[in-house]
Amino acid sequence: MPELRRDPVTGEWVIVAGERAKRPSDFAGHSRGHHTDEREECPFCPGNESLTPPEIMAFRQPGSQRNGPGWWIRVVPNKYPALAIEGDLNKTGFGVYDWMNGVGAHEVIVETSEHDKQLPFLDTRQIEDVLWAYRARYLDLKKDPRLKHILIFRNYGRVAGASLSHPHSQLVATPVVPRQVAAELEGAERYHGYRDRCVYCDMLRQETDEGQRLVCENEHFIAFEPYAAKYPFETCLLPKRHCASFAAISAEEQTAFAGMLGEALRRLHICLDDAPYNYNIHTAPCNGDEIDDFHWHLKIFPRLTIAAGFEMGTGIYINVTPPELAADCLRQVGREAGAPIPAESPVATEHSGEQATSSSS
Amino acid sequence: MPELRRDPVTGEWVIVAGERAKRPSDFAGHSRGHHTDEREECPFCPGNESLTPPEIMAFRQPGSQRNGPGWWIRVVPNKYPALAIEGDLNKTGFGVYDWMNGVGAHEVIVETSEHDKQLPFLDTRQIEDVLWAYRARYLDLKKDPRLKHILIFRNYGRVAGASLSHPHSQLVATPVVPRQVAAELEGAERYHGYRDRCVYCDMLRQETDEGQRLVCENEHFIAFEPYAAKYPFETCLLPKRHCASFAAISAEEQTAFAGMLGEALRRLHICLDDAPYNYNIHTAPCNGDEIDDFHWHLKIFPRLTIAAGFEMGTGIYINVTPPELAADCLRQVGREAGAPIPAESPVATEHSGEQATSSSS
Repeated sequence: MPELRRDPVTGEWVIVAGERAKRPSDFAGHSRGHHTDEREECPFCPGNESLTPPEIMAFRQPGSQRNGPGWWIRVVPNKYPALAIEGDLNKTGFGVYDWMNGVGAHEVIVETSEHDKQLPFLDTRQIEDVLWAYRARYLDLKKDPRLKHILIFRNYGRVAGASLSHPHSQLVATPVVPRQVAAELEGAERYHGYRDRCVYCDMLRQETDEGQRLVCENEHFIAFEPYAAKYPFETCLLPKRHCASFAAISAEEQTAFAGMLGEALRRLHICLDDAPYNYNIHTAPCNGDEIDDFHWHLKIFPRLTIAAGFEMGTGIYINVTPPELAADCLRQVGREAGAPIPAESPVATEHSGEQATSSSS
Repeated sequence: MPELRRDPVTGEWVIVAGERAKRPSDFAGHSRGHHTDEREECPFCPGNESLTPPEIMAFRQPGSQRNGPGWWIRVVPNKYPALAIEGDLNKTGFGVYDWMNGVGAHEVIVETSEHDKQLPFLDTRQIEDVLWAYRARYLDLKKDPRLKHILIFRNYGRVAGASLSHPHSQLVATPVVPRQVAAELEGAERYHGYRDRCVYCDMLRQETDEGQRLVCENEHFIAFEPYAAKYPFETCLLPKRHCASFAAISAEEQTAFAGMLGEALRRLHICLDDAPYNYNIHTAPCNGDEIDDFHWHLKIFPRLTIAAGFEMGTGIYINVTPPELAADCLRQVGREAGAPIPAESPVATEHSGEQATSSSS
């Protein structure tokens, strides 16, 4: 079983692998390998349902069988989970160190039955269903009193940590509120305490007024390049309605969210030539229904540069593309490609997500 | 000139590039390129001194000329600095956002005149001189009242962010105390406030007593795998004498530090087949002469896995190799290779530091 261990200085939690511990030889030869999954052995393709653990939920054609084909979205436990769903949460100490067993959830949301169709090039209706699947799993896991926070994220391209190319997102529920989440909650609370306003609502107002970092906008969302973006072309999707939890989204907002997510990813795809990226949803912790100073959002991080010794030692990132320049490039894409952005994808290639350059010598 | 921008929620500072801003096309084609520097055009090789900005200091043969050959260690300003040394520090705000001009220092410590001789395979005496160069630059920059913290670090291998293969370290002095540094200082202070002991001294005692995470030890240092290591084979070098600042090291300790750094890097090199890595020195801020609850140390981070959407969203790392297993592997290396560890290096190859695998699907 995986473990959670706490850094005795900073208090940061780390997940330490259980049975699947990697020895030095396990790291060799992974150097420049391509995605290993061919379609016939892809565990996320229809017909290969038996290659995954039994499904947790699926959106399926009427009459189709659980764990068989006929689905258009399928959620399964991660075959190699970072945290395990079974067992009580135990905590103990060893001298100066703190320990917790690795209780949690790690699920995969397979976004489409089509192996080569990447998320931004799905129908907006299908993207919306992906978001509904996110929400359904979030609400179900939120009931588990052992779980404190649920992170929904997507890794695209090997450089961004994806080992399977079939379009999928992931969800990890943790028995602690992660440090990064706590930092945002505390920061929003501090700002609210000082100004009696939401920091995200203030950003929304300033970005909309100034426009220089704005990428696109619809009735319920804006997409913008954050003023202090850590990564070149880092993009934030912010709902216009102040709300701490992603799960409280309305049907109309969900449609707008799907449209905005697709558009932002397509603009990035075109502008950055199919660059690898991660995105994650920043939302309140499981017990956060009463929180009124947080404001949920989604952040996309293209992986164009490498965090190195400086970033690791300081936490200060070097962003080699000013957000204003990035926003301008992403807005141009719309014009060049004509509005609306083309919905047809080039077929995903083996080269997806291989690029990465250094931010410092 | 570069800028420092502050995240209005978390308070994190980000360095945003000045003149050398990268457009989308600048990221293309960097995908799987090798180190571009051939020896004849390597700016760090003897004879090519004019390819770098004028040297700040060097250890040279008597009679040799500044900015000419005859040196064995050479420190120069980074040609593409993350922060600029000229100008007063100015601070201002733009609505919700905070700004500072990018004042600081960014230097390169060329560790040897030999292009292909990697740090761990230099004579221990030469490694010691590298450490003396670190200290000399640290003490000089510490006098500048604009600078709050100095980070000394090394990137090895492209995957770890190195764009030039000639052995070198870097130094970045910042006009703010970085978040990661503040987190360690605050954590050590909190522990000290609660127990009236140094957390690092307590770790040193526990690791030495238990031995299961210990890699090697000499009179003045231990090398161990941290209990809550974020990275597989993450290794910490901790001085036995409690002291907040690296710069307060004695001559005898420096010799022991050089020996320990060389040995730890050679064990990692052999065990992980020349894997890319970063290291950095965690030391008190510039005004930290009075701090008595911190304890300086050096951390080495092999780059075998990729931080992805989960790590970026939570700050929780997934370590796929338990530190006890890693320590055992690193101790074995000594036995297999016989003591002492072989001092002769295989010549650095084009493949150095290319490996990286994913920590989650």
